[in-house]
Amino acid sequence: MGDLLNGIAASTGVAIAKAFVYKEPDLTIKEKTTNHPSEECAHLDKALDKARGELAHIQEKTRQELGEEKAEIFAAHLLVLSDPEFVEATKSKIETDRVTAAYALDNVAAMFVAMFENMDNDYMRERASDIRDVSRRVLRHLLGIDMSSLADIREDTVIIAHDLTPSDTAQLNPAVIKGFATNIGGRTSHSAIMSRSLEIPAVVGTKMITDKVENGMMIIVDGVSGVVIVDPTEEELTLYREKQADFQKQKAEWAKLATKKTMTQDHHHIELAANIGTPKDLEGVLQNGAEGIGLYRTEFLYMDRSELPSEEEQFAAYKEVVERMEGKPVVIRTLDIGGDKELSYLNLPEELNPFLGFRAIRLCLEREDIFRTQLRALLRASVFGNLKVMFPMIATLEELRAAKHLLEDEKARLTSEGIDTSDEMEVGIMVEIPSTAVAAEQFAQEVDFFSIGTNDLIQYTLAADRMNERVAYLYQPYHPAVLRLVQMVAEAAHKHGKWVGMCGEMAGDETAIPLLLGLGLDELSMSATSILPARSQLASIKRSEAVPLALEALRKGIAEEVKQLVQAKYGQATR
Amino acid sequence: MGDLLNGIAASTGVAIAKAFVYKEPDLTIKEKTTNHPSEECAHLDKALDKARGELAHIQEKTRQELGEEKAEIFAAHLLVLSDPEFVEATKSKIETDRVTAAYALDNVAAMFVAMFENMDNDYMRERASDIRDVSRRVLRHLLGIDMSSLADIREDTVIIAHDLTPSDTAQLNPAVIKGFATNIGGRTSHSAIMSRSLEIPAVVGTKMITDKVENGMMIIVDGVSGVVIVDPTEEELTLYREKQADFQKQKAEWAKLATKKTMTQDHHHIELAANIGTPKDLEGVLQNGAEGIGLYRTEFLYMDRSELPSEEEQFAAYKEVVERMEGKPVVIRTLDIGGDKELSYLNLPEELNPFLGFRAIRLCLEREDIFRTQLRALLRASVFGNLKVMFPMIATLEELRAAKHLLEDEKARLTSEGIDTSDEMEVGIMVEIPSTAVAAEQFAQEVDFFSIGTNDLIQYTLAADRMNERVAYLYQPYHPAVLRLVQMVAEAAHKHGKWVGMCGEMAGDETAIPLLLGLGLDELSMSATSILPARSQLASIKRSEAVPLALEALRKGIAEEVKQLVQAKYGQATR
Repeated sequence: MGDLLNGIAASTGVAIAKAFVYKEPDLTIKEKTTNHPSEECAHLDKALDKARGELAHIQEKTRQELGEEKAEIFAAHLLVLSDPEFVEATKSKIETDRVTAAYALDNVAAMFVAMFENMDNDYMRERASDIRDVSRRVLRHLLGIDMSSLADIREDTVIIAHDLTPSDTAQLNPAVIKGFATNIGGRTSHSAIMSRSLEIPAVVGTKMITDKVENGMMIIVDGVSGVVIVDPTEEELTLYREKQADFQKQKAEWAKLATKKTMTQDHHHIELAANIGTPKDLEGVLQNGAEGIGLYRTEFLYMDRSELPSEEEQFAAYKEVVERMEGKPVVIRTLDIGGDKELSYLNLPEELNPFLGFRAIRLCLEREDIFRTQLRALLRASVFGNLKVMFPMIATLEELRAAKHLLEDEKARLTSEGIDTSDEMEVGIMVEIPSTAVAAEQFAQEVDFFSIGTNDLIQYTLAADRMNERVAYLYQPYHPAVLRLVQMVAEAAHKHGKWVGMCGEMAGDETAIPLLLGLGLDELSMSATSILPARSQLASIKRSEAVPLALEALRKGIAEEVKQLVQAKYGQATR
Repeated sequence: MGDLLNGIAASTGVAIAKAFVYKEPDLTIKEKTTNHPSEECAHLDKALDKARGELAHIQEKTRQELGEEKAEIFAAHLLVLSDPEFVEATKSKIETDRVTAAYALDNVAAMFVAMFENMDNDYMRERASDIRDVSRRVLRHLLGIDMSSLADIREDTVIIAHDLTPSDTAQLNPAVIKGFATNIGGRTSHSAIMSRSLEIPAVVGTKMITDKVENGMMIIVDGVSGVVIVDPTEEELTLYREKQADFQKQKAEWAKLATKKTMTQDHHHIELAANIGTPKDLEGVLQNGAEGIGLYRTEFLYMDRSELPSEEEQFAAYKEVVERMEGKPVVIRTLDIGGDKELSYLNLPEELNPFLGFRAIRLCLEREDIFRTQLRALLRASVFGNLKVMFPMIATLEELRAAKHLLEDEKARLTSEGIDTSDEMEVGIMVEIPSTAVAAEQFAQEVDFFSIGTNDLIQYTLAADRMNERVAYLYQPYHPAVLRLVQMVAEAAHKHGKWVGMCGEMAGDETAIPLLLGLGLDELSMSATSILPARSQLASIKRSEAVPLALEALRKGIAEEVKQLVQAKYGQATR
């Protein structure tokens, strides 16, 4: 029997190929002091330039292949390279201590990394990993070490590594890279997210895969169950080739559904839509047969720049999306900034509890200038397709009324300027704050639709920051209280003839889907790659069975019992 | 007509007396440099010693007169004086810059104050005001300036000041200080809280009272409606003397209720209990006729010390409270630390969103050593009275079960050691997380009682940090969703034959009380001074009218409409 390692299933599918053990190049710095600090500063500038050029290239490549959101990481790297604090600290060290650029950079980077790592939260630790990744890139140029050979791989390969940085994964050619397995990482680490976007089977967090594997060994990566088999037997190979064929067959089946309407086995329609960050994400959306856009996050228009986007820029982006969706619904969420998403040029004060702070609609209602510009752009784009506006973080009816008032005000102003706007544009809200779920009955009378944002709703309902590892166990989508809130929202919506969707991660979750069907959701919006599997899953289940299942789940005491209930009926999750 | 100023009603009642305009002494520093830095350091040490002695005295006096919680502020001042960072920074400045102790202290204090003030949250800004207050005290000793004359006032007086620090208010003699009015401050500023504890009428935040008043002028402070009248006419004096007499009569009426059971006009009993921080608070509790302790916050046992309290210490405190309450119910909440309440000796890591973090039961279930010690002390005390245990921040049934398991485990262990514990001790939970309110039906089957903690419940339900000024408008006790959650909890409790109380600030709120009666709460726990007014209020309203009122409130859209509904029926709040 081959050596079997358990890890975390990061990206589904089965890969069988020879191993390439990817080791990071040795960046040990040999020389330390210098008599020519100004030359070292010049070296540094050159290395920074090269690194910038590379990153711009990778960023563009990633944007084209994986969309805007994935490319953001390289924008963050570019920001590090232009951060005067970082660059000046390095130069000042070169000059003051008369050390080489490589030594100074290594030192300064280590200091920044240590600072960010000591901040006890995932977001800041990711900044540390950005700095580590980008400074290694500059260091390679300073030391004259070739870029790693990942991009040069020409035959079918499974990558084995301690970890893969965003820079590493960006080089992977999905035509030959069949899968990968790493020592560290979790389902939400960069490498895991990238593997899902690239649709490469991956298992992360195996702890010691690099100790077990030599170049050229045969490897099975089972991204369905999170298992890696090193040097498998013939029987194992046969077994997994069958599993792989089954998975391919299933993928082919899924692909056939791209042009189909989503229907349960008992002919109930439920709309499957996609979440997007920018117009560049539309290609994947159309390929995967989305019936609409359930969540267009407009934050990306505002990020990685030094000033607010103009009305024209926004108009162009919104118009492109609604036009390319050719009459299919496009729900555009107004600016949701604050919390963990900052815009440095707004100079927002620091908050003790940013997730409970001045963000999204709270900020937009105070900064009317920002909000009105966006509303005008949305109104102007509304005549080019089926655009719906959605306000985030609504907690009170006053907020909803204030937001609607500004929208109507801008609509009237545009009309008086002779500019066309649609009279059919629906206006809805995210339900992501418990008060709004609990008082959904009152809100339903003043909106056209609800979309339940589970990522935030769950963290507020359980009072647990989902980015805080110490309380992450409380991020429980199957908690009976979460299901009950979903039910309250759905019932209130339907009572008043409105539709209700969901656009959090839960919407694409295999175990959650039967419950959401049973609770009466009309639309589920998810990442594009989840749409076809979800359509396939829904085709195999009956609404008439999902309804009593959901009611039974509501009576359970704990999340684990809910999960077991669903899996006892429909089997373990397979994706 | 006298000059009329509007401010914020901080403490109820009417005061009529001559003004004493309290000005802070001039602490301008005349000398700057010195040739004798070591002597200046010795001066500093002496001044610090004197300040410490005074503070210890004031702390003890406050503890005796106002209870442990109010005395905490002086413990915080003492901590500043022993903070090596603060003292060493001052000495180092004296020696390095060869400046006087007064100049160095003023400088270092200003730096610390600026640092804390720039942290954009109320808690940190209060730390800034602590440092300002305590450094002024030390400075007075260094400059040889007498302590202010507030303590020497011998005749009936209304104090007029820009602001009153905790040190100032601690000197006030309630026998002659009839009221006060300040330029700055809000309902939760130190001076406001102190005025309520001392039961002195007060109006804060008048913006400019010090500009309008000279020593000896006649002043009316109307702490009911938040008005100050400077140099009133005879008519005004007559009017307000009547108002004052009415208020005194009402107070006398209230006092008669101290030995009465709380009954609505239609003979429905509701229990009015008190919130306490330490056994020292019991005197006020008994004077005000509390029917029990609805919330004993045990955090104070753990605070302002360098190590955990022993089982014996805790046992002594719990035993004292249950014994002195002579069989009346005493609900003791287990340790609720974390969030805004820190224990430096636990070395908890910083969190990005501490209110959504590792606190209360989450911490206790991981730090079993701390939790088991407290549970043993509670179990041992349970035989000395009517002790009930309450777990804070319960979000899931797993947590409740884990906590109960540890309790039963320690009970068995005590029994095997031959130590008596009560078999009648009730075990309940705080309902302060939305998930627990929504799933109250499931929780009701596994607890003996609920107590709704509105301070946290409201902030999680509306997703707004109540300490963050920018979103403080979202802290809405009358939001229909909050009322609906209260209803869900009460219905679930009663369905399973359990009782349900409330121990947040909302429980003592005049406008909320009819709603809480109507929603079916069995117990309301509040600050001791609110009990008699609440008992009087309840005697005047009928449960049979409160029930339909509450149901109507649940259908309202916004908090303001709920408030208007109640006030249309029962009149404006008067306390």
